[in-house]
Amino acid sequence: MTGAQTKPLLRALAGETLDRPPWWLMRQAGRYLPEYRALRTQAEDFIGFCRSPKLAAEATLQPIRRFGMDAAILFSDILLVPRALGQKVGFGGDGPALDAIADDKALAALSLAGLDWLNPVYETIGRVRGDLPDTTALIGFAGAPWTVATYMVEGGSSRDFARVKGWAYRDPDSFGRLIGLIEEATIAFLLGQIAAGVEVVQLFDSWAGVLPEPAFARWAIAPARRIVSAVKARFPDCPVIGFPRGAGLLYERYASESGVTAIGLDTVVPLGHAATLQRAVPVQGNLDPVILAAGGSALSTAVGDIRHALAGGPHIFNLGHGVLPETPPEHVAELARLLAA
Amino acid sequence: MTGAQTKPLLRALAGETLDRPPWWLMRQAGRYLPEYRALRTQAEDFIGFCRSPKLAAEATLQPIRRFGMDAAILFSDILLVPRALGQKVGFGGDGPALDAIADDKALAALSLAGLDWLNPVYETIGRVRGDLPDTTALIGFAGAPWTVATYMVEGGSSRDFARVKGWAYRDPDSFGRLIGLIEEATIAFLLGQIAAGVEVVQLFDSWAGVLPEPAFARWAIAPARRIVSAVKARFPDCPVIGFPRGAGLLYERYASESGVTAIGLDTVVPLGHAATLQRAVPVQGNLDPVILAAGGSALSTAVGDIRHALAGGPHIFNLGHGVLPETPPEHVAELARLLAA
Repeated sequence: MTGAQTKPLLRALAGETLDRPPWWLMRQAGRYLPEYRALRTQAEDFIGFCRSPKLAAEATLQPIRRFGMDAAILFSDILLVPRALGQKVGFGGDGPALDAIADDKALAALSLAGLDWLNPVYETIGRVRGDLPDTTALIGFAGAPWTVATYMVEGGSSRDFARVKGWAYRDPDSFGRLIGLIEEATIAFLLGQIAAGVEVVQLFDSWAGVLPEPAFARWAIAPARRIVSAVKARFPDCPVIGFPRGAGLLYERYASESGVTAIGLDTVVPLGHAATLQRAVPVQGNLDPVILAAGGSALSTAVGDIRHALAGGPHIFNLGHGVLPETPPEHVAELARLLAA
Repeated sequence: MTGAQTKPLLRALAGETLDRPPWWLMRQAGRYLPEYRALRTQAEDFIGFCRSPKLAAEATLQPIRRFGMDAAILFSDILLVPRALGQKVGFGGDGPALDAIADDKALAALSLAGLDWLNPVYETIGRVRGDLPDTTALIGFAGAPWTVATYMVEGGSSRDFARVKGWAYRDPDSFGRLIGLIEEATIAFLLGQIAAGVEVVQLFDSWAGVLPEPAFARWAIAPARRIVSAVKARFPDCPVIGFPRGAGLLYERYASESGVTAIGLDTVVPLGHAATLQRAVPVQGNLDPVILAAGGSALSTAVGDIRHALAGGPHIFNLGHGVLPETPPEHVAELARLLAA
């Protein structure tokens, strides 16, 4: 692993306890930055933006130039995979909109044959690697199969996940074929990203937290374990961060059974429990993005509390969810100062 | 407590382990029932429906006649309290819509002077009590202050709770005045319900699960403790069920610090943890409403698993969230049969 010794993120992921935690922020590239909003106008649609190596590389680099995080995360979207599988995916003002699939027949129309459609992403990675500071790691990512399936089946965001859970409960074999298909595409996509130059991958299971334990084991843990295993088979040294957002009482089981190198913690994981999890794996998190948007003494207190609670083991400082679009960039600069102190 | 010995719900709440758990369902009265949809047309707006003793009593009784649950829950809504405090509250197709309040000035326009507006609810309770079978308990309820505040500040449902959390983080003293006001109204409302004849009250903290631990302690546990204490001061024998939905790793702290008689568990509390909590307090839950809507072997398996896991202590069978409108009523009948076996 070239550079592993000098990149703080990789040192923490290797299990090292550092004096100052390395940091990056989920959605650190994005709408809260005026330079991103300006850049975004150069592509008509959001998927086109993600598939433009020039624009996506620039978006990836913007926050690093401004704030000097210890890691850049590839600018992309978890819904590129369903699009590559052949599903129609659009992005409007209210979030993503997909032509929802609901059964075996719709499933049969999807295929792994068109994954080449993702190739521009690998070109983005090459561009970014050339422009990153020596100590800054590059993170690739994908949505975890359950989370991607929620969008594919609900057709967008959901309040109760009744369609996707309903399918999983009524016909787990058929639903398992959808999960298996996403899993295969995800493995290919992550291997492609690592081959192109990302040094770490994160698996975002943003909706893992809506699954009762038996379903969590089957649709969140098991696919993660198979994905981690496939990544490790080809790239044994590439760390995988699992982020089963909202897993609550099931974080511990996820950490011990999925095989991930490290786990991302959401905003509501109590720090005492985070420190317990940290005995098993490096932990990443978990400032509430609303506190970053609020700033002031709420921010400095929360940052101090998190650092203090997790100072005894490997810790990567991050939010517990993505940066909110209304976040003043000065608050991120303030966070950088707090973390450097 | 008249009838405590013969009502299974009250026996379970008193800590008794019963051979068959008493049961009721959150939102057991409502849109999944054709007779409710017919009744609903008799009032123009939803708040008017809730404030009609005749219509609300009939809605409360409908599921009892059909399915014979061990408890009826007053047909009402947690947003009657903000309306009684003077906030504009409407219900459209997309859920509730309130004139959002955001600061001390808006707060100053609210008042406890108009709580008489809630009086029709007490009349509903009197009507229902007269018509319930001898072994059926009547449950009253209110929203917990944090959850009610989310609607009052966000103006409706929210994805990230950025406004209400932002207020709480930036200016906890001012936000605490809002919580205190809701708390006072909630205490008065619950005392009024108990005086009118409900035998149990449930405090719905539907959005407790978005609060990091320090905020959870301050805005979910502390108000619950004060409300429970005020209820117990006047009605020492009235059980209070706390439902901090999504509390995950903080359920245990809520159960031990809030003073509630019993706790409602959401769908993702693992059954092993539920059994642990049950050693401290009676537990209520926690079937996934999507499983009830799905029916079939998913339903019988899940019901069996829940009963088996919680057979060793006081348990009230319920969902982990409200009945979904698309639930076939026959599935509720099937659930009744499964629970009678």
